[in-house]
Amino acid sequence: MSTGHHEASWRLPESDPLAATDIEHFKALARTAERGTFDSLFLADGPVLWGDVAQRPAGVIEPLTLLTVLAAATEHIGLIATASTTYNSPYNLARRFSSLDHVSAGRAGWNIVTTAGPAAARNFGLDDAPAHAQRYERAAEFTEVVKKLWDSWEDDVYVGDKKLGVWGDQRKIHPPRHQGTYFSVEGALNVPRSPQGYPLLVQAGSSEDGKDFAARYAEAVFTAQQTLAEARSFYADLKARTLAAGRDPEGVKILPGLVPVIGSTEAEARLRDAQLEELITYEHGRRTLSELLQIPLDQLDLDSRLPENLPPPELINGAQSRYELVVELARRDKLTVRELIGRLGGGRGHRTFAGTPEQVADEIELWFTGGAADGFNIMPPVLPSGLEVFVDEVVPILRRRGLFRTAYVPGETLRARYGLPRPDATRSASKRTDIDTRTGSKS
Amino acid sequence: MSTGHHEASWRLPESDPLAATDIEHFKALARTAERGTFDSLFLADGPVLWGDVAQRPAGVIEPLTLLTVLAAATEHIGLIATASTTYNSPYNLARRFSSLDHVSAGRAGWNIVTTAGPAAARNFGLDDAPAHAQRYERAAEFTEVVKKLWDSWEDDVYVGDKKLGVWGDQRKIHPPRHQGTYFSVEGALNVPRSPQGYPLLVQAGSSEDGKDFAARYAEAVFTAQQTLAEARSFYADLKARTLAAGRDPEGVKILPGLVPVIGSTEAEARLRDAQLEELITYEHGRRTLSELLQIPLDQLDLDSRLPENLPPPELINGAQSRYELVVELARRDKLTVRELIGRLGGGRGHRTFAGTPEQVADEIELWFTGGAADGFNIMPPVLPSGLEVFVDEVVPILRRRGLFRTAYVPGETLRARYGLPRPDATRSASKRTDIDTRTGSKS
Repeated sequence: MSTGHHEASWRLPESDPLAATDIEHFKALARTAERGTFDSLFLADGPVLWGDVAQRPAGVIEPLTLLTVLAAATEHIGLIATASTTYNSPYNLARRFSSLDHVSAGRAGWNIVTTAGPAAARNFGLDDAPAHAQRYERAAEFTEVVKKLWDSWEDDVYVGDKKLGVWGDQRKIHPPRHQGTYFSVEGALNVPRSPQGYPLLVQAGSSEDGKDFAARYAEAVFTAQQTLAEARSFYADLKARTLAAGRDPEGVKILPGLVPVIGSTEAEARLRDAQLEELITYEHGRRTLSELLQIPLDQLDLDSRLPENLPPPELINGAQSRYELVVELARRDKLTVRELIGRLGGGRGHRTFAGTPEQVADEIELWFTGGAADGFNIMPPVLPSGLEVFVDEVVPILRRRGLFRTAYVPGETLRARYGLPRPDATRSASKRTDIDTRTGSKS
Repeated sequence: MSTGHHEASWRLPESDPLAATDIEHFKALARTAERGTFDSLFLADGPVLWGDVAQRPAGVIEPLTLLTVLAAATEHIGLIATASTTYNSPYNLARRFSSLDHVSAGRAGWNIVTTAGPAAARNFGLDDAPAHAQRYERAAEFTEVVKKLWDSWEDDVYVGDKKLGVWGDQRKIHPPRHQGTYFSVEGALNVPRSPQGYPLLVQAGSSEDGKDFAARYAEAVFTAQQTLAEARSFYADLKARTLAAGRDPEGVKILPGLVPVIGSTEAEARLRDAQLEELITYEHGRRTLSELLQIPLDQLDLDSRLPENLPPPELINGAQSRYELVVELARRDKLTVRELIGRLGGGRGHRTFAGTPEQVADEIELWFTGGAADGFNIMPPVLPSGLEVFVDEVVPILRRRGLFRTAYVPGETLRARYGLPRPDATRSASKRTDIDTRTGSKS
């Protein structure tokens, strides 16, 4: 949320409840993050208006549009937008990400999501979202197709012979000619190959299907992990799956979410956390929980625990890993629904940590050096103040400890910042010709 | 095309053949147009890579992305992007145009097109484009749905009571609950109502279906007209159809294309035109003509006239009005295929006029005061030089004659600049409630 990741942040005196449509607010955030030499900015998204506008700020600028504005307002920071494979077509989305990569000089990233829930489905002519496994099957084919589109121009198509009137070399254009289960896409992209070749490919679902998808395609993974032990186990599991999928485990960066509540003393930080919790609208939290856990509203009593006998996550056609995390958290800490809502208010399942800048840096170091994280998705509870204090107070500590960069490499792409190679369109195109030959179509 | 509307413009020594992906090039164009107090910038589009990249510059930045960049680089000028109703979904497109309207403070326009031809269709899982009439039927429903989405937020949803924790008023949110032939769209947009309410609605097809569509929905119409008589007749026809559709004819502005080839003497302008014509690659022109007229390549001999017995336009499942214009031009002026390609090279069917700044201003005045145009779509043959000379030499003459503004009204929206009212979401929502009641669905 634009006023911060704590759902009640908009109610603080310092917050602007209309920040979501104020591009100056986002420009200032992006510049602060760039001052802190962050890798990238990340915008979540779903093509739907959630819930009741009474209960929290609603309505946003569409993420690729907003990141295009921020590309012009910044120089170095990566720009990662969420977009759904269930409610887009590959040709349109490949164009848009390639275009963002062009206008940002190689700073674009795509957070690939499948979009759970019936509300979004009903905005696109469906009664409900396709089943979980089917959404991921479509996501895999979608990703294959957009990669073919991004590879449909070699780097050196341009010839530019004005005298002879030859602009480009058609032999270096490789139409996908894709015929699949979900998509048929014949022609080459109408955008030349972008600075990064592909945007950085990001994934954020931690279900079984999600982890398998990440192992095959993702170069960065956002994940919600509540404890160091769980985060280590997720980290090891995903790296192993990546290796099993035939990829270098170093090629996927694992980035747990962290909601840092920062105070000059630990007591001050805890007080700040408690003050935010007091501002939570529990009726809103109950409704959100009812949707996430697919439990009827009347079975969620604020002062009781969650109902017994909840179905296993694999029977949930929604956000399976978030469901599992929330149910486990409630059971482990024996929380009432009210307490659970309080815990989730900070980061909707992401870990909240309240402490001094030194303590926050310690936690980050512990997870980073302890096999639990390659980096973090920092989700300040209140914006812009929570980002400013992180950049001014925590980042310098991390830098002093040699854990974080002190400056950007000028002109570096997002992909290079993550230590990833630039995809080779030539190799991909020749590989594709082989496949086409085997299936009998001409290439 | 980014180097100019003449197809051979990229071959001039002054042109940058890579201008299409150079955002600085477009920023400079936008600023020049703003210096000339133009109404707006307009970007054409089709989701397809046309033809052979050997024969002319290919590959562009996706228009809404580029206009978002230009929104940040300019202050006043309108930003009109073409987008297809055949290859988009209403929810996604409504979001994107609403977002552009937000980030440009009310300067967005949508050129509504249906996208002819099989090449684009094959990028979206179809073998060929839907039939002409069906495309327009879908376009009409598409437009109705996006208008409902733009009206799904009243202007004053925001309440902002931090104390009580009430952000907005859900009663002022009106989900479309649209169930139609082509689309089902249930929920409200997730973007608050934008500065203009709707972007300016533009249309550019001049077929029978196109004119009927324009009469119902368009607020500005781009059209290709070769002679004053034809332009007058088109103008009168479209204004009459608009009246017949129950709208104020003043509510649709008719803007013929004009390719001004400007010289300090008439002879110099004609020489410049001839020099550009010499640079045309006739094989490319022949292929383009074959596609447009749907005549096999081997029946187009460069030194003969067009074949006899061409089908009537209503049997063409493509750009019907452009087909009709080109065939009429060839017949009227008894042109060989080579001569026809030369004539079309300047503006692909739009009128080319070569002369001094005074003569160009005279032509504009003649059409403007003679019932043929409410304004013009100026398509310089070479960019940026052709725009610069128009702004520096022609605009001052038009201003002196009292035909054109000398400055922008600060903060004016594009819609206001066209003398159009801001749509009223409240009225539209109550109208929709009536319809919903009659059809028995709840609202």
